[in-house]
Amino acid sequence: MFKIECVDHIGIAVPDLAEAKKFYEDMLGLTCTGEEVVAEQKVKTAFIPTGEAEIELLEATAPDSPIAKYLEKNGGRQGIQHIALRVDDIEAALADLKEKGVRMIDEKPRYGAGGSSIAFVHPKASGVLVELCQRKK
Amino acid sequence: MFKIECVDHIGIAVPDLAEAKKFYEDMLGLTCTGEEVVAEQKVKTAFIPTGEAEIELLEATAPDSPIAKYLEKNGGRQGIQHIALRVDDIEAALADLKEKGVRMIDEKPRYGAGGSSIAFVHPKASGVLVELCQRKK
Repeated sequence: MFKIECVDHIGIAVPDLAEAKKFYEDMLGLTCTGEEVVAEQKVKTAFIPTGEAEIELLEATAPDSPIAKYLEKNGGRQGIQHIALRVDDIEAALADLKEKGVRMIDEKPRYGAGGSSIAFVHPKASGVLVELCQRKK
Repeated sequence: MFKIECVDHIGIAVPDLAEAKKFYEDMLGLTCTGEEVVAEQKVKTAFIPTGEAEIELLEATAPDSPIAKYLEKNGGRQGIQHIALRVDDIEAALADLKEKGVRMIDEKPRYGAGGSSIAFVHPKASGVLVELCQRKK
């Protein structure tokens, strides 16, 4: 058994991280933190903390990055690429969803930004791209 | 001056509310609450509370609903249509963004699901559809 604890973050695919940050910082008064290149996913990320659920801006670092593919499909425009739900136990979640026959992208947890353990549910399962993530203790 | 307090909810446009709920309830163990028709926006909504930020499922109630238009653009497929940020004072937020020249869909607050006051920022302003909302006291 596992429990969804909260929305952990919302992933926004952007063509240009520096450009995208301007709206959140200059117009909304928020602050971007924790810029990080996640090599495994070929993305550069920045987080915008605001309460419990953060906004994650994602820029591609390679043409075959999932973010580059998303932007290409989206006519080159920014868009909300995924929603991440925080779970108490990602191994238990993956076992449970496997038993229920839910189609996954990741059958095993992998490294996510900020040191979390993450796994993506296949978008065919619900209609949107859902990430499950467990924050490091 | 105004303050963004947190991500309030994430709005997911769905072709069929009852069908969409199954994934969140049966697979993820979450519970949908507060189904409501918001006539002004031509949508039927259901909220999925999970921590501070909720998931809002949105089904169109008319062919000219913003949700119907979103789905049409998205090839009939579900998608994350908007992100809603909770503000402490929506009147102050609208005045401040107007002064900064941010393009808005709504220049005045209007009724949102659950009795909140909401206003949409034009997607051209940031690249995604952002809702500002103030919860009723």
